[in-house]
Amino acid sequence: MEEDAWLEARLRPIGVISSELTRRSEAPRQGSEGAPDAWIEVHPWAAEGLQGLAAGDELLVITWFHQACRDVLRVHPRSDARNPLTGVFATRSPDRPNPLGLHPVVVRAVDGNRLRVGPIEAIDGTPVVDIKPALQSSSFFSSRGSPR
Amino acid sequence: MEEDAWLEARLRPIGVISSELTRRSEAPRQGSEGAPDAWIEVHPWAAEGLQGLAAGDELLVITWFHQACRDVLRVHPRSDARNPLTGVFATRSPDRPNPLGLHPVVVRAVDGNRLRVGPIEAIDGTPVVDIKPALQSSSFFSSRGSPR
Repeated sequence: MEEDAWLEARLRPIGVISSELTRRSEAPRQGSEGAPDAWIEVHPWAAEGLQGLAAGDELLVITWFHQACRDVLRVHPRSDARNPLTGVFATRSPDRPNPLGLHPVVVRAVDGNRLRVGPIEAIDGTPVVDIKPALQSSSFFSSRGSPR
Repeated sequence: MEEDAWLEARLRPIGVISSELTRRSEAPRQGSEGAPDAWIEVHPWAAEGLQGLAAGDELLVITWFHQACRDVLRVHPRSDARNPLTGVFATRSPDRPNPLGLHPVVVRAVDGNRLRVGPIEAIDGTPVVDIKPALQSSSFFSSRGSPR
């Protein structure tokens, strides 16, 4: 693949976040830092993909930070100028070449094609592009467990 | 956002996997299932984003499964017909609407714009679209630790 090739394939949102958080400025930096629960409104065409999910499941939700800046390669972590400039791949900055958000959440409820999940810092209207089960959540780097 | 809207923004690969695995059929299903180490060849334009990464770091590498099938919503987990059909969002199947791969890895070495990481089951030539630090890797759902 050529260095500057952009992938022809585009992301197709499978759903959207419905949250009380409406502005990036009011969102916590991580779900674990006081974020609320939110709904993932899964689009009807994709709802079949939810089969097998239930309350209590630990998931990784992948979003597209639609308000992010894609030409940033270094940031001051946590937007604190006292932190030295650091490569975005060593940080969780939403500003990065491909602004994918990765959110570990717990399923609170399943209601048809809607999933109540949390805690999650993504703001209202954020497109959701994938949902995956968390593998061996309490030992993310071990080889225990039996992934599906 | 309209239900069937595709995101205008396309993914721009930040690098590519260089691995001894050359066929999907020979790749383990998860990195922890006997996958080898591999290089991530980060494209020069994105190399600045690596600043701050070092051997021993635990990362989440996000790839684009370029050989995946995007119109699949249910699968037999682990391609075993004895497993009941399950929604792709409850599985780690590479076949899914947005075939993003999520790979927890450890950095073995940093060599300029190349990262040696592993274990990783992505095959040679797989585009890499993002790299993130693993937060609280050993307690992925706890609120301990100080994310960057």
